[in-house]
Amino acid sequence: MDHVFYPWSAQAGVHPVPVTGASGSWFWDAEGKRYLDFSSQLVNVNIGHQHPDVVAAIVAQAGTLTTISPTVGNEVRSELARLIVERAPGQLNRVLFTTGGAEAVEHAVRLARSYTGRTKMLSAYRSYHGGTGVAIGLTGEPRRWGAEPTNVDVIRFFGPYPYRSAWQCTTPEQETAAALRHLRQVIELEGPQHIAGLILESVVGTNGVLVPPPGYLAGVRELCDEFGIVYIADEVMAGFGRVGEWFAVQAFDVAPDLITFAKGVNSGYVPLGGVLIAERIAARYDDTVYPGGLTYAGHPLACAAGVASIGVFEREGILDHVRTVGSDVLGKGLRELASRHPSVGEVRGMGFFWALELVRDPQTREPLVPFAASGAAAEPMSRVTAAAKERGLWPFVAANRLQIAPPLTTSADELRTGMGILDEVLAVADSYVGESAAQ
Amino acid sequence: MDHVFYPWSAQAGVHPVPVTGASGSWFWDAEGKRYLDFSSQLVNVNIGHQHPDVVAAIVAQAGTLTTISPTVGNEVRSELARLIVERAPGQLNRVLFTTGGAEAVEHAVRLARSYTGRTKMLSAYRSYHGGTGVAIGLTGEPRRWGAEPTNVDVIRFFGPYPYRSAWQCTTPEQETAAALRHLRQVIELEGPQHIAGLILESVVGTNGVLVPPPGYLAGVRELCDEFGIVYIADEVMAGFGRVGEWFAVQAFDVAPDLITFAKGVNSGYVPLGGVLIAERIAARYDDTVYPGGLTYAGHPLACAAGVASIGVFEREGILDHVRTVGSDVLGKGLRELASRHPSVGEVRGMGFFWALELVRDPQTREPLVPFAASGAAAEPMSRVTAAAKERGLWPFVAANRLQIAPPLTTSADELRTGMGILDEVLAVADSYVGESAAQ
Repeated sequence: MDHVFYPWSAQAGVHPVPVTGASGSWFWDAEGKRYLDFSSQLVNVNIGHQHPDVVAAIVAQAGTLTTISPTVGNEVRSELARLIVERAPGQLNRVLFTTGGAEAVEHAVRLARSYTGRTKMLSAYRSYHGGTGVAIGLTGEPRRWGAEPTNVDVIRFFGPYPYRSAWQCTTPEQETAAALRHLRQVIELEGPQHIAGLILESVVGTNGVLVPPPGYLAGVRELCDEFGIVYIADEVMAGFGRVGEWFAVQAFDVAPDLITFAKGVNSGYVPLGGVLIAERIAARYDDTVYPGGLTYAGHPLACAAGVASIGVFEREGILDHVRTVGSDVLGKGLRELASRHPSVGEVRGMGFFWALELVRDPQTREPLVPFAASGAAAEPMSRVTAAAKERGLWPFVAANRLQIAPPLTTSADELRTGMGILDEVLAVADSYVGESAAQ
Repeated sequence: MDHVFYPWSAQAGVHPVPVTGASGSWFWDAEGKRYLDFSSQLVNVNIGHQHPDVVAAIVAQAGTLTTISPTVGNEVRSELARLIVERAPGQLNRVLFTTGGAEAVEHAVRLARSYTGRTKMLSAYRSYHGGTGVAIGLTGEPRRWGAEPTNVDVIRFFGPYPYRSAWQCTTPEQETAAALRHLRQVIELEGPQHIAGLILESVVGTNGVLVPPPGYLAGVRELCDEFGIVYIADEVMAGFGRVGEWFAVQAFDVAPDLITFAKGVNSGYVPLGGVLIAERIAARYDDTVYPGGLTYAGHPLACAAGVASIGVFEREGILDHVRTVGSDVLGKGLRELASRHPSVGEVRGMGFFWALELVRDPQTREPLVPFAASGAAAEPMSRVTAAAKERGLWPFVAANRLQIAPPLTTSADELRTGMGILDEVLAVADSYVGESAAQ
C-alpha cells in the first residue's frame, strides 16, 4: 500500500506515474517510458531537470552546512540575496527568504499591512497565490473554495483578459483602460485609506497565462502610488526567466514595492522562496521588529542551489534563449498549430510561457469544458491530457487550456518535437468543435 | 551590505554570528569560536549537525532526482511515508507531505474543516503553530499580534500550566480536572456542532515546554470523541524523538486524528513537514478531491533525508538515549542547578526538552521579565542570553525562560559541559532576585 496522501486528488483515483529519473527537458518512469516535460513540474524546474552544476552545488553545500537558524549569519544566504538584488528592478534591495511561494505571499501581505497600518488587500479574480491561509484567501479561482472561510479583508477585482473581457472590450487598449477604471472604482468604494496592498501576478500563470495588455501594469503602479497602496508583484511562476527577464515586471518597465518569488529561483531542487523588498519599506524595520519568520528562512542548502542556478543562467545565456526561441520557435509554432485546429480559440503568451485556450466554438468562444468543471464535465480535457501523456508529452493543463511551460533550457528541436505531438493531441479537442456542452 | 532581511528582528539591530560550519552538537563561526548547541537551531536538528549518513543520503539523491511534481509517484517519497506510518500510534496511516510545520498545520485544519463540514477551530493560549495565515491565527501568543487580522472562526482556550494555573490549582490532578472542565465549557458555549477541530502541542514548545499533567491529553481525546471534533496533535517540535518517543502522544498513550510534524523528521537538512492522517479521515477522500496541495509536497531530496534520518535513529538507539540520559543526566542536572539558583522558579520537561522558568521571586513567581516584554524591559533575559553565548553555549530563550533542547545525539558529557556553563549564566539571573520589575 502507498501511504502517501496525494494533493488535489481523490485518493482512489490516483495511479501516479512512478518517476525514477530525469535530465534536462525529460523525465522517465520505472518502465523506461520517457516524457518531454512541457510543464516544468508546475512551472518549477526552469533550468531543467538535474542540471549538473546545481547538483554539484548541492553536494558541496551538503558537506559543509545544510541548515542553520535564520537569525544567524550565513555566507551563501547573503550571497544569494546579493545576486537577486543585483538583478531586481527599482529600489528592491532586501530579501526575506521563505521555503516557497505561499509563504512568500504571506510575508508580502504581512509587510504591506504592517507598513501601512491598513488591513484590506486587493487581489484579482483568476489568480493563484498559494495554499496557506492568507495566500489561498487572496486566490481568485476555485481552489480557494475548499479552504474557505479564509482570512478577512480581501477584496477581489477583475484584471484584463482581452479574450473574455469583463467589459466587452474588443481591443487591448480598451481593455487596459476599462480594467484600470474598474480598479479605481473598487479602490474608491473600499476606501483607499483602508487598503494595505494589491497583489497581482505579473503574467497570470495557472489561470490562463494572461499577459497584461500594454499600459496595464504601469497603470496599476500609478494607482498604488496615488493611494499609498503597496504593490506586490507575485512572480512565483513568472519570475526567474520564464518570460525572458529575471523578473517579469521588467518586460513592462514597472517596479513594484514587493516581489514574491520561489520555484525558478533554484528550480525547486531544494524548497526556497522569498520576498524582494523595496528599500523604503525595509527601512521601516531598521528599528522596529518585523513580526514574522520561519525556521527554514534562508536555508543554506537551498540558497546554494540558488546561487548555482543564477550562475547557470548567466553562463548559458538562458534569458536570451527564452526571448528569441520563445518568440521565433515556440510562439510562432503554436500560432501555426492554432491556424489548423479550430479548437484553439486563442494562443497567448511570451517567452517560454504560453496557453492554448480550447473552445467548442471559435465564434461563441464556449470553452471546451465549463468553468470549474469536474468529473464527466471535464472529460474532454482529461482525454486531451491522456492523449499527450500517451505520446510522451507532459503538459501543464488547467481548466480548458493546454498550457506550455517547458524548462528554459529546452532546445528549439525539442520544442518542435513537443509541438509535433500537440498537433496530434489537438485532434482530440477538435472532435468536440461544434458540439455544445449544454446540449 | 547584507541584503538579507532577517525574520523577527529589527534590521539595524541584527549583528548575526556568521556561522560557517557545524558538526554533531557544535557549530562555529568565521573566527573559529565554537558553540555547544542547546537549541538544536529552533528545535530542528534532532540528529545533530551534519550527520554523515544523512548528508550521504542527500548527496546520493541529489545525483538521481532532486524534485518532481507532487502528483506523480516517487519511490523515496512512498518509502518515507511507510516508515513514518509504521512508527505512528493508532490508525494514523496516511501522510500528506509539506515543506514545513506551518503548512502542515494549514493542511490539518483544512482536513478537519473539510471532513466535518464545520468551521470553528479550537486552539490553546500559550501555543505556537506556525507563521502562515491559518497557523498564525491559531497561535496563542504575542507572535500572532503582528499578523492580525488573522483567519476567522478560531477560539482559544486555556491549557494546563500548573506553575501558573488559570484556576489557582495546586496539584497536577486538580489542574487536569480544571482544564478539562474549562475546555468542556468552551465547547458547549461555542456549539460543538460548529467545531471542526482542536489543535494542541502535545508538549507545548516555545511557550514553555509545558508537559501535560497526567490524564489531560486522554481527556482531550475523550471530549473530541464525544463531540465529533477532529483532534490535531501539533508535534512540529515535540515529535521525532524530542521527548524520547517517535511521537510525543505515545508517552501519554493517546492517538489523535491528525499529527503535524516537520523539523525532526529530517532535522531540517532539507525543508520538510507533513500531516499524519487517521484512516477514517483519509478514506473520506477516496472518491472526493482533497482541496489542497503545494509544489514541493513530498520533495524527493527532503524525503531521502527523512529516510536516512529514521535509519540513524534506529541504528544509534536515539530514543533510548533520550529517555535515559534525558532523565538521569539532563533532568537530574537541571534540578540540581535549580536547587542552588533562586532565580529558577521551576524546572520542567522530559527527554531532551526542558525549561528553566526564571523569576524575580520564588514565592510570588514574578517572572524575570514581564509578559511580552521588549526593549529595556527584556534586558535581564538579553543579559542571560549574552552570558551564555559569551561562554560558548547557544540557548533556546523564550520570554522569561531558558529552554534546553540539545540535539538528541548529544552525549552525557556534553550535556554536563553545557550545564556547567548554565551554572555560571544563572548567576546573572540570580542578581535580579528580590528586585521587582514594578519598582
